[in-house]
Amino acid sequence: MLTIKQLNAGDANFWQDLDAMLAWDSVSDDAVFNTVNGILKDVRKRGDDAVVEYTNRFDRMSVAGMAELEIPLARLQTALTAIPAAQRAALEEAAQRIRAYAEHQKMDSWSYTEADGTLLGQQVTALDRVGLYVPGGKAAYPSSVLMNAVPAKVAGVPELIMVVPTPDGEVNELVLAAAAIAGVDRVFAIGGAQAVAALAYGTQTVPQVDKVVGPGNIYVATAKRMVYGTVGIDMIAGPSEILVVCDGKTNPDWIAMDLFSQAEHDEDAQSILVCPDADFIEQVKASITRLLEEMPRKTIISKSLEGRGVLIQVQDMDEAVKVANYIAPEHLELSVENPREMAAQIRHAGAIFMGRYTAEAVGDYCAGPNHVLPTSRTARFSSPLGVYDFQKRSSLIDCSAQGASALGKIASVLAHGEGLTAHGRSAEYRIIES
Amino acid sequence: MLTIKQLNAGDANFWQDLDAMLAWDSVSDDAVFNTVNGILKDVRKRGDDAVVEYTNRFDRMSVAGMAELEIPLARLQTALTAIPAAQRAALEEAAQRIRAYAEHQKMDSWSYTEADGTLLGQQVTALDRVGLYVPGGKAAYPSSVLMNAVPAKVAGVPELIMVVPTPDGEVNELVLAAAAIAGVDRVFAIGGAQAVAALAYGTQTVPQVDKVVGPGNIYVATAKRMVYGTVGIDMIAGPSEILVVCDGKTNPDWIAMDLFSQAEHDEDAQSILVCPDADFIEQVKASITRLLEEMPRKTIISKSLEGRGVLIQVQDMDEAVKVANYIAPEHLELSVENPREMAAQIRHAGAIFMGRYTAEAVGDYCAGPNHVLPTSRTARFSSPLGVYDFQKRSSLIDCSAQGASALGKIASVLAHGEGLTAHGRSAEYRIIES
Repeated sequence: MLTIKQLNAGDANFWQDLDAMLAWDSVSDDAVFNTVNGILKDVRKRGDDAVVEYTNRFDRMSVAGMAELEIPLARLQTALTAIPAAQRAALEEAAQRIRAYAEHQKMDSWSYTEADGTLLGQQVTALDRVGLYVPGGKAAYPSSVLMNAVPAKVAGVPELIMVVPTPDGEVNELVLAAAAIAGVDRVFAIGGAQAVAALAYGTQTVPQVDKVVGPGNIYVATAKRMVYGTVGIDMIAGPSEILVVCDGKTNPDWIAMDLFSQAEHDEDAQSILVCPDADFIEQVKASITRLLEEMPRKTIISKSLEGRGVLIQVQDMDEAVKVANYIAPEHLELSVENPREMAAQIRHAGAIFMGRYTAEAVGDYCAGPNHVLPTSRTARFSSPLGVYDFQKRSSLIDCSAQGASALGKIASVLAHGEGLTAHGRSAEYRIIES
Repeated sequence: MLTIKQLNAGDANFWQDLDAMLAWDSVSDDAVFNTVNGILKDVRKRGDDAVVEYTNRFDRMSVAGMAELEIPLARLQTALTAIPAAQRAALEEAAQRIRAYAEHQKMDSWSYTEADGTLLGQQVTALDRVGLYVPGGKAAYPSSVLMNAVPAKVAGVPELIMVVPTPDGEVNELVLAAAAIAGVDRVFAIGGAQAVAALAYGTQTVPQVDKVVGPGNIYVATAKRMVYGTVGIDMIAGPSEILVVCDGKTNPDWIAMDLFSQAEHDEDAQSILVCPDADFIEQVKASITRLLEEMPRKTIISKSLEGRGVLIQVQDMDEAVKVANYIAPEHLELSVENPREMAAQIRHAGAIFMGRYTAEAVGDYCAGPNHVLPTSRTARFSSPLGVYDFQKRSSLIDCSAQGASALGKIASVLAHGEGLTAHGRSAEYRIIES
């Protein structure tokens, strides 16, 4: 019999208890840090040779040089034609929907001209080259390839370099097929900290990128954190989470399965239910007990729910909103009667799934919005991965002679107030004597 | 006689030599890391008591408790009325222009509805609470208060908490006046890693924020890097840089002074001139020699220009663009005949100052665009500070019954392809049997 933590928002210690359940420390320990630090330095210094050595060692490969680790684009096309037709159709439809949604996110340049002829604006450009990390082995998700690569291509990134480890030479055909659909430009069969280093610093064979995106294990995450500054990174993701707010009128089996769909990701994943109806919470518990038996990932789901799952009883839906905003969940499912009204009150969430029909799982694959979302309460200050992550802005300032003179006078006062004479003089040169 | 490095883009070793000049390592050493780590842990554990102790020690204060370190809003108003009228007018005009530009950056929510009634969209919200770090002492810049605070307020951040150290009790009246103009909500006279920790973790008196922005010394930068994840941060800025591209037809004194205006910031600041005209480069050198004598910050300017300045001769303006895009400068001044044509070819720059009249210094204070800009080549992947840094997005998905059924079928195929049964089942529950 599974035991899931239950809390009541009316209890004196509720917020403290909730905090304890939410706590997640993403800091990597010294051993991981030192290992990654060594690999980064080595790849930076020795390039291809180091990458080949680490790949042979960690992925149990035996290649003589980096050239053998490039997967040609023709191989991606082979995978695309080889996979079952239903899977190919599903991947293509998902890609099309992700692309359609991403098009709405694309930023455009803008400018405006003031009365004296001075132009101000913002020029938007795409990144030149982006690296996409794709995990190998069990955590190889073709959907992640689409979610990371499609927005980059919509942004107009000319060159997208994918890295994916192939431990023991094992290649994931669905991942290669997804890369073909997404329009990835080059693929290397490398992974771990050495792949992140190759992308961030460049080697003789792997071109240096401007940003590294994509999920990975603790070594990959640590490497990304360490190369941040040399290149951009997307985010350091914690374990996946879902918060389901239910009014007690959805089929409890549906809610149980929605909680499972996060829990099955890994043992650290977090599934939380918030509901004002004590009876309904009991029904969901019964569904959990019954449905768990049918799950191939029963062990992972059980550990996740027992270790990090929470069932929270609230007084009413206003309190549910308050709890949801505090948690700032990665995935927020509003399985309630008027979900759009409630969504308008949500201040912090990665993605909001509205209504009883909107399972979080459709968002993972094909609804359109990105499944790379801020975790561990970071939705308080960050956003889903999007086209905007592959674009950047440059401010534009073009002063007319008259504008430069007027602005020069203001700048002069402020520059001297800050004790910066050269700033003042530089502005004053452009003042028109009258 | 000042010696500035000169390069010719036609030389065999040019890119290598340029790389050597651009190299900047922002990594903090172990001693700084350990000091900051200790302070962060202590503030997290002991709250106000720790902040008060560090403040008394590092800022040579002698306060009994945190309450004494809060600067009341009335005190900011006092500063605003006490400063010279010209300075107040300049600050207010600058704030108004920064606000007007920032309004153009504000993101709005959007959504669209598909044929089957499924709604997809993006909900934009402001951050709840932001911490603004303002350096004390010599590097206290009222313009930075405006540049950081105004976009946050335009974004709609309800609560903006400013921290500014007051070493030996010394308060900067212009900084307080700028805070009053910008609408800062609370101010604490604390600084260093202890102030960053107080903002990131919260104490009994200092409320926990969602993001910490603003410049600071190496201790502040290290603390920001370490609390990233718990809260958001703006960026880790390196030394300031300017790249001036000149066709040789601007007054060489103007160009020299524009180079000085970066160099006077600090000894590590970098000023680079790119020009196709060897004679003009010589004229600028003569201007530098002559004008340097008039500069109160002569010593800093000399060290900066000798240590990190570069004069680059190029073959033509196309090569100048190539060099500029490689350097991806924080500030790019296009002192040329057709600056807008050239700006359209610029792929990477924090801010682009177009034309002979547009001194970088007006951008520092009052043109409107933000002066917090990506440094050290990070303009390849990042953007100026803006309203968008104080807003975040939540994806919106509301499936109609029909939409959920259609999407459920796609999700089911992909979920089973990834071996995620609960994902598949969760989606399949919503498929309408036909």
